[in-house]
Amino acid sequence: MLDATRLRNPSLFAKVVSADEAAALITDGMRVGVGGFTPSGYPKQTTLALAEQIRRGKPCRIQIWSGASVGPEIEEELAKVHGVSVRMPYYAATNRTMQAQINEREIAYIDLHLSEFAQQVDYGFFGEVDVAIVEAAAITEQGDIVLGSGVGNIPMFVRHAKTVIVEVNTSIPLEMEGMHDILILPKPPRRREIPIYAPSDRAGSPYVTCGLERIDAIVESDIPDHVRTLAKPTPTTQAIAEHLVDFLENEVRQGRIPAEMLPLQSGVGTIANAVLMGLSAGHLPPLTMYSEILQDAVFHLVRSGNIRAASGCAFTPSPEVWEMFRAEPELYRKSIVLRPLDISNSPEVIRRLGVIAINTPLEFDIYGQANSTHVLGSKMINGIGGSGDYMRNGYLSVFTSPSTGAGGKISKVVPMVSHADHTEHDGQIFITECGVADTRGLDPVARAKEIIEHCAHPTFRPVLREYLRLALRHGGHEPVDLAAAFQPALQFRATGRMRPAE
Amino acid sequence: MLDATRLRNPSLFAKVVSADEAAALITDGMRVGVGGFTPSGYPKQTTLALAEQIRRGKPCRIQIWSGASVGPEIEEELAKVHGVSVRMPYYAATNRTMQAQINEREIAYIDLHLSEFAQQVDYGFFGEVDVAIVEAAAITEQGDIVLGSGVGNIPMFVRHAKTVIVEVNTSIPLEMEGMHDILILPKPPRRREIPIYAPSDRAGSPYVTCGLERIDAIVESDIPDHVRTLAKPTPTTQAIAEHLVDFLENEVRQGRIPAEMLPLQSGVGTIANAVLMGLSAGHLPPLTMYSEILQDAVFHLVRSGNIRAASGCAFTPSPEVWEMFRAEPELYRKSIVLRPLDISNSPEVIRRLGVIAINTPLEFDIYGQANSTHVLGSKMINGIGGSGDYMRNGYLSVFTSPSTGAGGKISKVVPMVSHADHTEHDGQIFITECGVADTRGLDPVARAKEIIEHCAHPTFRPVLREYLRLALRHGGHEPVDLAAAFQPALQFRATGRMRPAE
Repeated sequence: MLDATRLRNPSLFAKVVSADEAAALITDGMRVGVGGFTPSGYPKQTTLALAEQIRRGKPCRIQIWSGASVGPEIEEELAKVHGVSVRMPYYAATNRTMQAQINEREIAYIDLHLSEFAQQVDYGFFGEVDVAIVEAAAITEQGDIVLGSGVGNIPMFVRHAKTVIVEVNTSIPLEMEGMHDILILPKPPRRREIPIYAPSDRAGSPYVTCGLERIDAIVESDIPDHVRTLAKPTPTTQAIAEHLVDFLENEVRQGRIPAEMLPLQSGVGTIANAVLMGLSAGHLPPLTMYSEILQDAVFHLVRSGNIRAASGCAFTPSPEVWEMFRAEPELYRKSIVLRPLDISNSPEVIRRLGVIAINTPLEFDIYGQANSTHVLGSKMINGIGGSGDYMRNGYLSVFTSPSTGAGGKISKVVPMVSHADHTEHDGQIFITECGVADTRGLDPVARAKEIIEHCAHPTFRPVLREYLRLALRHGGHEPVDLAAAFQPALQFRATGRMRPAE
Repeated sequence: MLDATRLRNPSLFAKVVSADEAAALITDGMRVGVGGFTPSGYPKQTTLALAEQIRRGKPCRIQIWSGASVGPEIEEELAKVHGVSVRMPYYAATNRTMQAQINEREIAYIDLHLSEFAQQVDYGFFGEVDVAIVEAAAITEQGDIVLGSGVGNIPMFVRHAKTVIVEVNTSIPLEMEGMHDILILPKPPRRREIPIYAPSDRAGSPYVTCGLERIDAIVESDIPDHVRTLAKPTPTTQAIAEHLVDFLENEVRQGRIPAEMLPLQSGVGTIANAVLMGLSAGHLPPLTMYSEILQDAVFHLVRSGNIRAASGCAFTPSPEVWEMFRAEPELYRKSIVLRPLDISNSPEVIRRLGVIAINTPLEFDIYGQANSTHVLGSKMINGIGGSGDYMRNGYLSVFTSPSTGAGGKISKVVPMVSHADHTEHDGQIFITECGVADTRGLDPVARAKEIIEHCAHPTFRPVLREYLRLALRHGGHEPVDLAAAFQPALQFRATGRMRPAE
């Protein structure tokens, strides 16, 4: 029930409407910016009601702009009624109907570096923002917004939106107030530095600036985020984590990473979780994170004292972690900062802080290019997200991956990636359960040998060595055999496996 | 003749040695950092003498680290005597012996984003710097160095070098003193912002800090830089420039670029020159530049009042422009700032200032990936240089290219680049003499159609349309046909042309 702790100005109660009434504000062709990130802190009621209106005959296809992936209440429900025309700037495989429509090109999906989307919206590159839908914990007396667990790009959408709908979700603990640090950069040529010099620094306001008069509708909600459960660690993810911990500890011993350590970024998923747990169990000092998304492991490590500060644009709490948060909100509020996506992923800040970037692509090749998005070059699995922002600007950039996929049928190390999201200039360290390839200071052929011998699975090494031999016949600084480069991919497409017939 | 205007502390005269004596300080296996950039402001005497020593039997192969490409006195002379083992972080096609040895892999060449090399040297990723060779206009009373027309990475090399050799070149006008702004960033986690908010801002010292005691040898020189002559504008480069000017003027009219305009970066070469001249003749206000290299055109435009401030890490003056400089040094000194490469190419500054990035790749593909380095995927023409730094971080990123190459035999627009230096996420605008493809807000297939119909040469459009048709049969968000993607490249390799037999 919405009360004065959630709606702190009496005038706000007059704006409370049903989800159906809020959804009626959205009409065909509109550009709708939603809050939240990977699915955390995104609005739910308005889009569920809109989907129902469309199902009943309202002609309406809209653009959905977001931070990153959002929950099924937006992506699945609207895709099922063919209500989405354009999707930017990120999408992940979890919502299958949307995935299918993106790959059938019913939905025009535009995949962008996440650090760039908010500013390009600000520059007017994609047209006006018609509606912003925010999920909030509360609205202040001045009409500013207390967010929940995901920030994403909602501050920029709210700034530009002609219509603002706020879903006040009573399941969000009010103790989250104060965790956010909302900073919107001025546009060039009047932009200044981002004054963040450590992951715990705050540079903005705890609230999204909006104002009472700009709020058009308030919808009550109590639907929790649709959080995904991470797979358990496996021997493979454990081995990858151990290699990475050994590698980083050695870098500290060699003086190439300072003894106090540098902030970490780690991507989403099981490997990322295993890495964090492994690092905190090692011989490194307490960690800091300057990352995009903060997974459950971060809360456990804050609690155990292994992480002293973490910055992200969202966290994805499981019910268990929400319990931990409610039990000790002060601990997490002082250790965790949630920022807008263009700040969490800012090249300026990532490079200044010396973030060690750790991400898992779909596949990488012998020369160090990586494919994060498209299976067999064509089919979108998920967007590039923030991986480009971090890998390009990291102090050290580490690609982690199992050496094989599809139950051993395919090699994650290939002659040439079928889609290049990260160039050979962007990653230095490659780690699979088989070992570590450190490519710093190596020319392409030396890099290829290092990657084949240390990262590829032993069953695939002969194929890769043979490819390199073929490529070397063509000569050149980075020899490729354009006729053979995609043989493993074509074999996979034809037979469902890459391994040569034995 | 070296006098007290060049060597401002009397103790320095005792350090003057012959080039032969200086070269004797360099021995087999050393890592040698040289000053200069694209060949401007690089040392000459010491490496000429070293090449002669090697020719006479001194066993010596060294690593050459630089800012970017340097002149034949380093690259050609040392390559001819097989004196180079490793080359970082950039190389350009002008020096043919070095090019051959890089492509034969006699020289291990490591191609890096230019903004990253200095910091990675600082982090110790490539080992210690044995020798720094600086070309200087003068040495101050305190033993600090007044540079010439190229900064590159020499400040970082000098900081770390065990041995410092300074070539004081009497052909450099002393009036250059004060043009440089030398800032070395602390390493993370103690790095602060780069306090540059406009191209003309200064954040450091006019001198490279060194100190009297760290200078091991001084060599007198009067060899001028080996400046390349740019080709004259052609109807093709003119048409590209006109399309770009029209495009940018329209962006200003639409409010997507502020009326006061934003700083420009433009790459090296004839197109870049034509673009600058075209922009200044248009309806835009006086320009500013935040770029890597400043070509002759910048001086002419400063003189005519069309450029009010320009920042780079080097300029490449022709003899005519040196004359202009000598006639009015004050004008150019107040309008031009020369910075270290990691500052001129800093993602932080590029993004903050909102630099409009304009670069010319070897080829680009229908989905917007670009190849800046490798012909047919294998043969290195020149490194990626700073193009990644600018294109990834630009306010708007524009690829310019003729639509065809090799006298019309090959298409610069291909189904899939044979080497990806820039991903589809990095460029928004593609311009050839045929027209402009604005890919903002377009999904991959829409992007492909835009690029084929507006940028490809009419004779190659049917081939590209047919490829897209084949690719679409495979479905997916960004359809590729892995069996057909390199057909034009393979055809070019086999027959010397891409055009289908008619």
